[in-house]
Amino acid sequence: MAKVQEIHHNGVNLSTQRGFVTKLKSGFKEALFPDDPFRQIMEEEKKSRRLIKGVQYFIPIFEWLPNYSLRLFFSDLIAGLTIASLAIPQGISYAKLANLPPLIGLYSSFVPPLVYAVFGSSRHMAVGTIAAASLLIASIVSTVADPIAEPTLYLHLIFTTTFITGVFQACLGFFRLGILVDFFSHSTITGFMGGTAVILILQQFKGIFGMKHFSTKTNVVAVLEGIFSNRHEIRWETTVLGIIFLVFLQFTRHLRLKKPKLFWVSAIAPITCVVVGGVFTYLVKGTQHGIQIVGHLDKGLNPISIQFLTFDRRYLSTVMKAGLISGVLSLAEGIAIGRSFSVTANTPHDGNKEMIAFGLMNLFGSFTSCYLTSGPFSKTAVNYNAGCKSAMTNVVQAVIMALTLQFLAPLFSNTPLVALSAIIVSAMLGLINYTEAIHLFKVDKFDFIICMSAFLGVAFLSMDIGLMLSVGLGVLRGLLYLARPPACKLGKLPDSGLYRDVEQYSNASTIPGVLIIQVGSPIYFSNSTYLKERILRYIKSEQSSSGDMVEHVILVLTAVSSIDTTAIEGLLETQKILEMKGIQMALVNPRLEVMEKLIASKFVEKVGKESFYLNLEDAVLACQYSLRTSKPNNNEDTV
Amino acid sequence: MAKVQEIHHNGVNLSTQRGFVTKLKSGFKEALFPDDPFRQIMEEEKKSRRLIKGVQYFIPIFEWLPNYSLRLFFSDLIAGLTIASLAIPQGISYAKLANLPPLIGLYSSFVPPLVYAVFGSSRHMAVGTIAAASLLIASIVSTVADPIAEPTLYLHLIFTTTFITGVFQACLGFFRLGILVDFFSHSTITGFMGGTAVILILQQFKGIFGMKHFSTKTNVVAVLEGIFSNRHEIRWETTVLGIIFLVFLQFTRHLRLKKPKLFWVSAIAPITCVVVGGVFTYLVKGTQHGIQIVGHLDKGLNPISIQFLTFDRRYLSTVMKAGLISGVLSLAEGIAIGRSFSVTANTPHDGNKEMIAFGLMNLFGSFTSCYLTSGPFSKTAVNYNAGCKSAMTNVVQAVIMALTLQFLAPLFSNTPLVALSAIIVSAMLGLINYTEAIHLFKVDKFDFIICMSAFLGVAFLSMDIGLMLSVGLGVLRGLLYLARPPACKLGKLPDSGLYRDVEQYSNASTIPGVLIIQVGSPIYFSNSTYLKERILRYIKSEQSSSGDMVEHVILVLTAVSSIDTTAIEGLLETQKILEMKGIQMALVNPRLEVMEKLIASKFVEKVGKESFYLNLEDAVLACQYSLRTSKPNNNEDTV
Repeated sequence: MAKVQEIHHNGVNLSTQRGFVTKLKSGFKEALFPDDPFRQIMEEEKKSRRLIKGVQYFIPIFEWLPNYSLRLFFSDLIAGLTIASLAIPQGISYAKLANLPPLIGLYSSFVPPLVYAVFGSSRHMAVGTIAAASLLIASIVSTVADPIAEPTLYLHLIFTTTFITGVFQACLGFFRLGILVDFFSHSTITGFMGGTAVILILQQFKGIFGMKHFSTKTNVVAVLEGIFSNRHEIRWETTVLGIIFLVFLQFTRHLRLKKPKLFWVSAIAPITCVVVGGVFTYLVKGTQHGIQIVGHLDKGLNPISIQFLTFDRRYLSTVMKAGLISGVLSLAEGIAIGRSFSVTANTPHDGNKEMIAFGLMNLFGSFTSCYLTSGPFSKTAVNYNAGCKSAMTNVVQAVIMALTLQFLAPLFSNTPLVALSAIIVSAMLGLINYTEAIHLFKVDKFDFIICMSAFLGVAFLSMDIGLMLSVGLGVLRGLLYLARPPACKLGKLPDSGLYRDVEQYSNASTIPGVLIIQVGSPIYFSNSTYLKERILRYIKSEQSSSGDMVEHVILVLTAVSSIDTTAIEGLLETQKILEMKGIQMALVNPRLEVMEKLIASKFVEKVGKESFYLNLEDAVLACQYSLRTSKPNNNEDTV
Repeated sequence: MAKVQEIHHNGVNLSTQRGFVTKLKSGFKEALFPDDPFRQIMEEEKKSRRLIKGVQYFIPIFEWLPNYSLRLFFSDLIAGLTIASLAIPQGISYAKLANLPPLIGLYSSFVPPLVYAVFGSSRHMAVGTIAAASLLIASIVSTVADPIAEPTLYLHLIFTTTFITGVFQACLGFFRLGILVDFFSHSTITGFMGGTAVILILQQFKGIFGMKHFSTKTNVVAVLEGIFSNRHEIRWETTVLGIIFLVFLQFTRHLRLKKPKLFWVSAIAPITCVVVGGVFTYLVKGTQHGIQIVGHLDKGLNPISIQFLTFDRRYLSTVMKAGLISGVLSLAEGIAIGRSFSVTANTPHDGNKEMIAFGLMNLFGSFTSCYLTSGPFSKTAVNYNAGCKSAMTNVVQAVIMALTLQFLAPLFSNTPLVALSAIIVSAMLGLINYTEAIHLFKVDKFDFIICMSAFLGVAFLSMDIGLMLSVGLGVLRGLLYLARPPACKLGKLPDSGLYRDVEQYSNASTIPGVLIIQVGSPIYFSNSTYLKERILRYIKSEQSSSGDMVEHVILVLTAVSSIDTTAIEGLLETQKILEMKGIQMALVNPRLEVMEKLIASKFVEKVGKESFYLNLEDAVLACQYSLRTSKPNNNEDTV
């Protein structure tokens, strides 16, 4: 379609219509490329420069490595050593959460950080396993394979889950579908984290009390029942040790909050617990007093696991479910964490690149005996505080982990389980963000409900149900908005002559005989009947409150950025109903997309272009003029 | 919360906060009572008058019957006779579509119209069975009960389905959940009707060709295969008869379109076909020439069927599915039809009352051997053209149907099936609304896709899948809007000083150093990241196109009617990022709900109330002033 010459009436552009391809392109760009990623590549004039820029865009290491210096490396070395010291106990503990051999947790801190260092866009992200996703995967996969009865099958299914997560995340990034991650709201994540923390803490009572039998379910009631029914197994030796570790860890956390410079104390506290606990257990022969230990650990780097990926029909749907849910969840969390640190430090961060990086690290992870990794909050915060400068910290972490695996692994076999439990409890206590929940309650009751549904759903039903319930409520909120986008009545402010919501500005006064309604956006099938009823109700209440007959209804369309054909039919219907009541309808400032459709559907022809105004003031003056001329005797004094 | 005194800054009301109960009440009212139904009742001062008004509200017959006159009755009698003549062939044919005995179709035009006459709010609605829903129910229920092998079970399940539809529809009306019906867009219904019409027409080839075996499936491929594989059964006698009937019916339809006054010719054409066909078949002993007839019909009114309702676990989920889908579908269609006629004639129509009336008529219908009824388009249009004045036409229809059932039913046993098939084909040809599909294509491509997905889904997959696919696409469109509500850049129009979209008004000019963005509504979790990226992109493209450094970003919030906590965090993040780039952010005209949350979340405190403006012009002037004072040498000439 060629662009015709602009035709204006009352200043309204009644002609500009974009061609179909233009509209499609613009819609496509807004939906999938809102950050316009290729602009900087396309701006280069030389082809060779473009190629370099393109490679640098897709593989960020080529962007920062050429400018990397020894001074930066020194900072990264310190930070890398710190996060590696955290990675060992976290790797072992979270692997236990996922019912996996402890070595898998250590393997997961070797390959994925290396992959992230190449593809990741954030400078602060520290890659590692995460508690919530570990538990989530375990709770889903263990429905089809028992981790104790069929450990090999279970392990292979976990690798397959990781593979699916990787492919899924990389595809999301490649096809720029970050739009999916957008539907995990901050409220959902807060609630989900809190709920997960509660059940994780309760589960750790097994380790802290030194119990041997426990509930395999992950909801509060089942876990409490499990503790209660096995209470004869509680060992005081382990319990005392657990409480000591916990008090120590919590003390270092508070120290960090009070004196941020001493962050390293809390950072090395977990590895201290592991080392001290291991030495202590060895010295007092703790295993004879009921203190359970990690047990035998092999030396050696990650074995290849690509041959273990199983796409058996019997398990495929479960594995897919676990992979997709944990994939979206770990992305939503990881991206949010990365973004918040990059905002604080004013460093680059690109959601779509992160998705590709996360995807590739899980993909390669699934080939090398790793399970799901992401950017855990605690590790990333430590990394940031330790003064990391680039993704090189992840390389340092990986190298240390490789040395550990190659030479030191057997030393960790003496680690008491109670130390790991204390580490998890201490980490989880920081994730119950009750101040955020209170904040949500104060600011937005619906967000509070979304948050609490995730929290309670996770705590009392199951992790996946809680998560989906909360996301579902978020979508429901959106649909409710679509069904009832708020309209408001405008009045004139005394001094400025501006028209504003009469409910918001009590000094705004209405104009006798003229009703001004600002319509909410969008007008779609889902609210076209509502809009009609709302307008009629405004007319009724206007007439019964002021006693004036409404003779003009002005619909301010400034806010309406989108309309569909059902809604256009509805507007026509409204206009007909108003006409029968002797009321004129005027439309003010329709926006581009709306105007295009009103023209294409012949709405403008049917209603008449004289009903359109660019400016509300003009519309009001026209209405007042028409009132005066139609009833000179009645209205002269009121206008 | 008490209402505090209003505090203004730059004219923005920074204090008004509604209490929680006020907000909840207003939200509740908008969602469920947008038409404010009890206003007229509550306005009455006397209690006894209120009671009368209340009864009249819930049972509309008490409203119109007291003022009913003999003159009105005469009009209704004519209309009632006309629709009754249509009800007999339609009742028999549509019952065949639902694989039910023909008598059930006739019963369904006796009890439900009586119930509707008492509770219905529309004056033009003619109650009866509908083709699409008949086929839909049959296609779902026959998956668990074969209508030929287990006719009794099948019949009982159909009654149960009708019962569930009735309860569901009445509940929707009682709890004012018309909001659900809003999600069936005009495009969905157009496509669904067209798709249904296509498969119904194809299915009628069985009757027209006089075949004995046929496909039981309802998609185009299966039906065509059915015709092809049984082609040896085609009888020329029946085919000739069918073509004659079809030509006659189509001729009368065209007559009506050309000369609307002769509507009665097309109205009585179907019963003419039935009578002429019956007499002809009897005279030529047509059954010996392969002309199939309806067969034995009992005399007598509707038998009670309440004892046949079965809630057996084995069938419950299927029956529920059939009841809910056909319930929502028939409501969406019936309400849309009733509304369109009431708009044309300027008569009352109330969606929620209609839902209760439809629900009760199906509820009582299920107790008295009826199946699903609604307001079919053809019958209602005939009713309207015949000059109906009130729901009394339905009483007339019911009385005539009762007389027919009591005395004339056996006469219809000779009706040839081919006549019924011709009647269905003729009715369905009117439902393939290809002009509407073309209109959708021209106006809104997405609506066209929604329409075609229903059309193709119904025609090539199955009715329920087609319907759900289309509704799902509608919801997806809504979610896509929520994820990417369009923003636009504003510029100043030369003469009026108004600020409008620069893409829409090519003469609007931007202000050097100041970027004005009108934000789309709502700002929710689903688009808070997008909004941030969109703003940063505007800044980049502004700087690269004009060469001016952007130093001020003004966000116009006029359109934003809703916000959530994730979005508030996002706005704060955006402000921080802009601040680091040395860009000031200003906010113009936040609306009531948005302002309340910005205050409650301490956003206003953090950003500073001096960043808020009531009027865009003021904000622009303030930015220009700040530009001038900060760089007196560079900018003096450009400002």
